[in-house]
Amino acid sequence: MSATARDDAATKILLDESEIPTHWYNVIPDLPAPPPPPLHPGTHEPIGPEALAPLFPMALILQEVSSDSYIEIPQEVRDVYALWRPSPLYRAKRLEEHLDTPAKIYFKYEGVSPAGSHKPNTAVPQAFYNAAAGVKRLTTETGAGQWGSALAFACAQYGIDLEVWQVAASFLQKPYRASMMRTWGATVHSSPSDLTEAGRAILAQNPDSPGSLGIAISEAVEAAMADEETKYALGSVLNHVLLHQTVIGEEALLQLAKTGDTPDLIVGCTGGGSNFAGLFFPFLREKLAGKMDPQILAVEPEACPSLTKGEYRYDFGDVAGMTPLMKMHTLGHDFVPDPIHAGGLRYHGMSPLISHMYELDLFEAEAINQTASFAAGVTFARTQGIVPAPEPTVAIAAAIREAEACRETGEEKVILTALCGHGHFDMAAYDAYFAGELTDYAYPTDKIADAMSRVPVVDA
Amino acid sequence: MSATARDDAATKILLDESEIPTHWYNVIPDLPAPPPPPLHPGTHEPIGPEALAPLFPMALILQEVSSDSYIEIPQEVRDVYALWRPSPLYRAKRLEEHLDTPAKIYFKYEGVSPAGSHKPNTAVPQAFYNAAAGVKRLTTETGAGQWGSALAFACAQYGIDLEVWQVAASFLQKPYRASMMRTWGATVHSSPSDLTEAGRAILAQNPDSPGSLGIAISEAVEAAMADEETKYALGSVLNHVLLHQTVIGEEALLQLAKTGDTPDLIVGCTGGGSNFAGLFFPFLREKLAGKMDPQILAVEPEACPSLTKGEYRYDFGDVAGMTPLMKMHTLGHDFVPDPIHAGGLRYHGMSPLISHMYELDLFEAEAINQTASFAAGVTFARTQGIVPAPEPTVAIAAAIREAEACRETGEEKVILTALCGHGHFDMAAYDAYFAGELTDYAYPTDKIADAMSRVPVVDA
Repeated sequence: MSATARDDAATKILLDESEIPTHWYNVIPDLPAPPPPPLHPGTHEPIGPEALAPLFPMALILQEVSSDSYIEIPQEVRDVYALWRPSPLYRAKRLEEHLDTPAKIYFKYEGVSPAGSHKPNTAVPQAFYNAAAGVKRLTTETGAGQWGSALAFACAQYGIDLEVWQVAASFLQKPYRASMMRTWGATVHSSPSDLTEAGRAILAQNPDSPGSLGIAISEAVEAAMADEETKYALGSVLNHVLLHQTVIGEEALLQLAKTGDTPDLIVGCTGGGSNFAGLFFPFLREKLAGKMDPQILAVEPEACPSLTKGEYRYDFGDVAGMTPLMKMHTLGHDFVPDPIHAGGLRYHGMSPLISHMYELDLFEAEAINQTASFAAGVTFARTQGIVPAPEPTVAIAAAIREAEACRETGEEKVILTALCGHGHFDMAAYDAYFAGELTDYAYPTDKIADAMSRVPVVDA
Repeated sequence: MSATARDDAATKILLDESEIPTHWYNVIPDLPAPPPPPLHPGTHEPIGPEALAPLFPMALILQEVSSDSYIEIPQEVRDVYALWRPSPLYRAKRLEEHLDTPAKIYFKYEGVSPAGSHKPNTAVPQAFYNAAAGVKRLTTETGAGQWGSALAFACAQYGIDLEVWQVAASFLQKPYRASMMRTWGATVHSSPSDLTEAGRAILAQNPDSPGSLGIAISEAVEAAMADEETKYALGSVLNHVLLHQTVIGEEALLQLAKTGDTPDLIVGCTGGGSNFAGLFFPFLREKLAGKMDPQILAVEPEACPSLTKGEYRYDFGDVAGMTPLMKMHTLGHDFVPDPIHAGGLRYHGMSPLISHMYELDLFEAEAINQTASFAAGVTFARTQGIVPAPEPTVAIAAAIREAEACRETGEEKVILTALCGHGHFDMAAYDAYFAGELTDYAYPTDKIADAMSRVPVVDA
């Protein structure tokens, strides 16, 4: 590609507000086989949608099990999406120049949302459907705070209350995400708390417990079950969450079409999988229809390698084993990842739908270590300006490596990645990187084997 | 206005990258009289542009004293502007609905820049012109860190080094702005430092000095003067800074024209004045040409009321009295404002150009107290999603008050304000607000009188 062509290309490809998608895309009907059902944690029998009714409003449950290819986005949701959507697709021209590569690097930037990540894409419809069903209050858990702040913003839009249980260690060390939740009107508790049976039991054993996502889930679920007008919301993993995130990929399809480019490589980071799903599901639809043929690549941290090192089998979604059993790539439900700074990727399992699609060879996966990720994040910040959250730096690192390979081969590969959030609340992680204090946790092989030994055996 | 009309209006008015302004607008030739010249601090004689040559490259000095109405923006600057510009103009429909007002509230949002404020609008050209002149290193001071991070981002784009002296109190209490500067490659020193004569002199008197903007300026200027290849950069107050910020107003003019609305009220926050100037100068041009007739209102904090309570006379720009004497609204160069959280508005003086224009009755000014500002900021965050930086909340408070007045009168007033930055690095201030710990500092009348007693008497 000539330098002139790059200079003439737009830095940002924008869409008009009228181009906010009208429908979410449900990938399941397009798959050669449906994903295996969730099982009752006691009986190991498949559970139906009614089992979810105490926790979620019916509209979301119907989306969870829908066989429709498209689900219309309510106007009230599109009105709130319009506060930041369509999000920009960037051509990373300055990064390309820095890498001296003939590759074209595009990134879809979700950090423009009020909460600074892709999470509001599902928080908004979840709050909307709950409000429409007469729910007065939602509960949820949050680790570092991305999901909790997204849901706090969303609940403020529809006038419902929110209580968030935030993992105590994060609550203490990263107080500003909780400040943001409070600014939007949410109540934030450090977890374990003395407000629930689950929390009190932990505190009785250890009054100084640093908490965990598993404990926080238990507290939020217990609080939702205890009140008729209260329900619970989850920020990743489930089908309806992935569904809502497809606005990312639908917009990116339109935006790339405006450039005349089609992707040769789509690369995203995976924790629970919702950001990656949101980006690639619509492109996979086009690929399955024979309209394009991109390589699709999930990137996870070596410290929490559910796709590349996890087993595909039934396991619990939470540490305590309270959730239904879900067939997924898991490191064991009580696996505790090393303390990498990409907190959003520290989940022992992978979304069941994404796990199923990985088994169907619909995409590839690899793992990248922490210092390589942060080095890529700094290169990105210095060339493109945006300081990325730690989570997407694993995908940026892979994109940079591929673009550098193109420098050798001369290939004008079109690379598309998702920058799912900014790092404004993660600057301590960058401090640790510059201080040389970041650890490259190797594949935690022994810890995985240990945790897997406690995964229930299911004949299914 | 009917509710339907509001529903149908766009939430965001976007411009294409090709609509980034090609020229900055210089308001000075359109004024009935030019602003008074700066004076030598010793002789009290007017100084010429050559006096600035040790600190600034010639291209910026020529802009400082230019009598041209328009100055072309270099393509290399527009290329970097394209990373976030044109910035969106928002119609605050959800805030209007919440206020139940017939008024239309528009806000121009500068928080989409990589550094999160309007400051990169001038940081980028300043870094560009320095790099073009062969300057290898810039120095600057920063308080809470908005300006330092904007300049760090800008210097990374043109490959020049940056050293920032950050006021020690902020350096300790708000470490993450310094982390951001380092991520972009800058070196950050706590001020006072032992790297300069000025810093060492302060430390000798008080090893635990919390520093001040005045001390930090002295250190940055001294370091720039000590090295041939090093220059200095300032983030507000000067004519060329205000000039660069006019991209805000030029874009807003285009965007409002697309809606068919013309502003009845333009309201902005003022510290040094650059954000307010950037918004209103292009609209003032249209007003002076008889094309519109908006009321123009500057809002400042009661704790630092340079326009509403300051005297218009020659004073120093810094605490130590090292700068040229500038005729401006001043509270006295050694006036120390009460510790309000809107750190960007804690400056004892007002831009000489804006001060001159205030004397010409080209706009009005008022002051608002701190808790009223934060209350407005929270209302804004809960309705529009974006958590504002403390600085623009004074203008938001005034905009909300005017919109509420329209609820009574039924007037469909068109209000335009500037949201000059997000509050992601200011969440501790929101915490203090919710904890009821924010103080409403009354007009500091006695402190002003005391500081004014030390302002030099100039016969000019």
